Amino acid sequence: MNVINRRTILQGLATLAATIPLRAAAKSPRVPTGSIDAARLQQSLEELSKFGRRAGGSFADGVSRVAYSEADVAGRAYAMELMRNAGLNPLIDAAGNLTGIRPGIDPLLKPIVIGSHIDTVPGGGNFDGNLGSMAAIEVVQTLNDQHIRTRHPIEVAIWSNEEGYTMGSAAAIGDVRTPFADPTSKKGIAAREALKRIGGDPDRLESAHRAPGSIRCYLELHIEQGGILDQAEIPIGIVDGIVGIDQYEVTIEGVANHAGTTPMRGRQDALIAAAKMIEAVNEIARAEPGRHVATVGKLEVTPNAPNVIPGLVRHTVEIRDLSPEKVKKLGRAIAERADQIAVETATKIVMERYFHLEPALADPALQAGIESASVSLGLKSMHLPSGAGHDAQELAKIGPMAMIFVPSVNGVSHSPNELTRWSDCANGANVLLRTLLEIDQVPFRDLS
Amino acid sequence: MNVINRRTILQGLATLAATIPLRAAAKSPRVPTGSIDAARLQQSLEELSKFGRRAGGSFADGVSRVAYSEADVAGRAYAMELMRNAGLNPLIDAAGNLTGIRPGIDPLLKPIVIGSHIDTVPGGGNFDGNLGSMAAIEVVQTLNDQHIRTRHPIEVAIWSNEEGYTMGSAAAIGDVRTPFADPTSKKGIAAREALKRIGGDPDRLESAHRAPGSIRCYLELHIEQGGILDQAEIPIGIVDGIVGIDQYEVTIEGVANHAGTTPMRGRQDALIAAAKMIEAVNEIARAEPGRHVATVGKLEVTPNAPNVIPGLVRHTVEIRDLSPEKVKKLGRAIAERADQIAVETATKIVMERYFHLEPALADPALQAGIESASVSLGLKSMHLPSGAGHDAQELAKIGPMAMIFVPSVNGVSHSPNELTRWSDCANGANVLLRTLLEIDQVPFRDLS
Repeated sequence: MNVINRRTILQGLATLAATIPLRAAAKSPRVPTGSIDAARLQQSLEELSKFGRRAGGSFADGVSRVAYSEADVAGRAYAMELMRNAGLNPLIDAAGNLTGIRPGIDPLLKPIVIGSHIDTVPGGGNFDGNLGSMAAIEVVQTLNDQHIRTRHPIEVAIWSNEEGYTMGSAAAIGDVRTPFADPTSKKGIAAREALKRIGGDPDRLESAHRAPGSIRCYLELHIEQGGILDQAEIPIGIVDGIVGIDQYEVTIEGVANHAGTTPMRGRQDALIAAAKMIEAVNEIARAEPGRHVATVGKLEVTPNAPNVIPGLVRHTVEIRDLSPEKVKKLGRAIAERADQIAVETATKIVMERYFHLEPALADPALQAGIESASVSLGLKSMHLPSGAGHDAQELAKIGPMAMIFVPSVNGVSHSPNELTRWSDCANGANVLLRTLLEIDQVPFRDLS
Repeated sequence: MNVINRRTILQGLATLAATIPLRAAAKSPRVPTGSIDAARLQQSLEELSKFGRRAGGSFADGVSRVAYSEADVAGRAYAMELMRNAGLNPLIDAAGNLTGIRPGIDPLLKPIVIGSHIDTVPGGGNFDGNLGSMAAIEVVQTLNDQHIRTRHPIEVAIWSNEEGYTMGSAAAIGDVRTPFADPTSKKGIAAREALKRIGGDPDRLESAHRAPGSIRCYLELHIEQGGILDQAEIPIGIVDGIVGIDQYEVTIEGVANHAGTTPMRGRQDALIAAAKMIEAVNEIARAEPGRHVATVGKLEVTPNAPNVIPGLVRHTVEIRDLSPEKVKKLGRAIAERADQIAVETATKIVMERYFHLEPALADPALQAGIESASVSLGLKSMHLPSGAGHDAQELAKIGPMAMIFVPSVNGVSHSPNELTRWSDCANGANVLLRTLLEIDQVPFRDLS
């Protein structure tokens, strides 16, 4: 009954809220205009970078803070300390996610969730995930420092094991990933032990599950991990969504034979067929207008000897785009070319999809909020897709989602050379703060 | 003085011999026309196949009689037993080659050497090398059975470790191969120990060296290891020579990057450049008339992940032909295309030759002898190159060389499925016998 009453009230308010345009709110004098502390944000990132740094290394050497490692445990302890300093009472949910809430004025409103992750790939950089996590805490500190009270609760979330297929945020929306879903397997047992090391509870993963409609929205600041903003010299990227992905395995069977004794014209060379496939993937992707990408990244030759005609080649084809129809269409076009190439080269080609990820679209109203926040800060912005995966793609399943991108120098990421300038870090955090404050003016929009 | 006298006499006789055409000799009633014992040859091959056969296996399962292995030692012991039965006194030279001589009538004449090898690749067949070795012994047995005396000594040679870059026959012509040439290296020490196991002496390898001009000729019967004779349904191949080989390593440097975040047009994809190289090698080879072959057999991608644009590809290019000029010309044409492809794909391509083998041409007079022997046996023959390497390529450096090929069913070799029909084995051995007897009519041709 309480629940029903709350929902009814929320729906009424949502209808009202929908009539208030975000841009109008942005221009409203009621929106606070405070700035984050750029030096403090830099310090947090520099301190965090010490957990997982190689002995004797410096900030420039990057970091290996792989999920569940000792470095991850230490980095998480540091993040919790920062959260406590910001008045957040950090909790660890069963999936190992760190969360802390700053209460809002209106107890009926759902939280605006901000955050990212602090685990990294082996040999990773100091900005991927780390910036969004430290900036979220910095935003709360700024609200505290400037005595700004928000209507909505503000929740900071540092999702666990993002680099392991967004394990923590996926669990938070109710998607329990292998190997946790397979608790008796060797990998499952190891994963459960690992999760316990960071304070998670593999037996109660469902307790981490948040229901659809349970958040006001999710906002994530992240480095671009590509070179579009850096090349365009635009400091703020408004993410249109996180692309969908199809991955195919292509198996090409030819006939292995002696490279000295088999005449050119009798050959059934699987690698020549693969070469035609690689070129076809590239040509088909380039012939189609848009921002999709298609890649042959992995290829293996059997028997792989200088003097043997390749009898077998296996390679991947990966296609990404915001439009699932386009991803499918490109896959079909490549499969059709594969059939032709099999005939041309007297080989057998089988193309099988082994991975599929739906795209996650950003909420247009939130995107408009990011744009007006950028305008108010005098920062140029542009729209772009996220070609990489993020925790935001999971959160999009339970509420409106948007992401703010800042430039990666030369587009480098997942590398010790990953670099986002301190000024760009501060710009991003300020846009996050300003967007949050603008959204806070629109009490909520109920999803149910 | 003795040596000089011998040489002077030999030269005089050579001049005389050159006036006797081989075909005329073939028609001479003085050439004996005996046939080998096909059943005995089959039995020898079947018996030999037991050494290196997997436990419980049959002849059809092929054999792993890798040089220096226990199976090799056992197979060699069997071969020596057969040689002894044929009145040959088998000796093991310092390089592990088994040789035995049947004396000729004329003590001044140099030996006609016949033979092959009995070591195999792992998971090899029962005919590659084995046929030529068993047939050489069978030829001597036939001469014994039929009381045929030859003018020249007949030497049977079973060369050691043919599959290891013709180690034994190379040493016999004075080319000491690595790792023997590098006795203090780990591989060198292992190779020396291995050679001792088959009765060789790594400290006296030079004692196995035969001088140029020290043999009348070398004749080797071998399976084709390709499908030309089988497809043409011709029982005897007259080898024009053993092709020369150039092997190149091509290194393509692009830029590895995130396959999701890097737009299509900014990419420097090393695998796309490699695809163009593979197609170029094939196109350039096919555009040129002739029997040459060019192959990309080995290719490795770095980092080789579905979601990373390949930053580095290394692949081989192997070119084979009887004409060293053509091998060089094709290599140049491929290198020129590589330069264009590097520009087209914004990659850096380096092409380096790491292996070079000169072709070994067969002696035309010996080839004519094989042809007339085939005619006299009512067997069709055709000329063809040997795309594979053989001990004969080494022996060609010290005397006239020729090879007789018999069909491999479907061109299969280096495989348990390697098959040459028993009738083809017998045909080949009979052509070997008849050719030897024809050559024996022409006392010698001095090379010095």
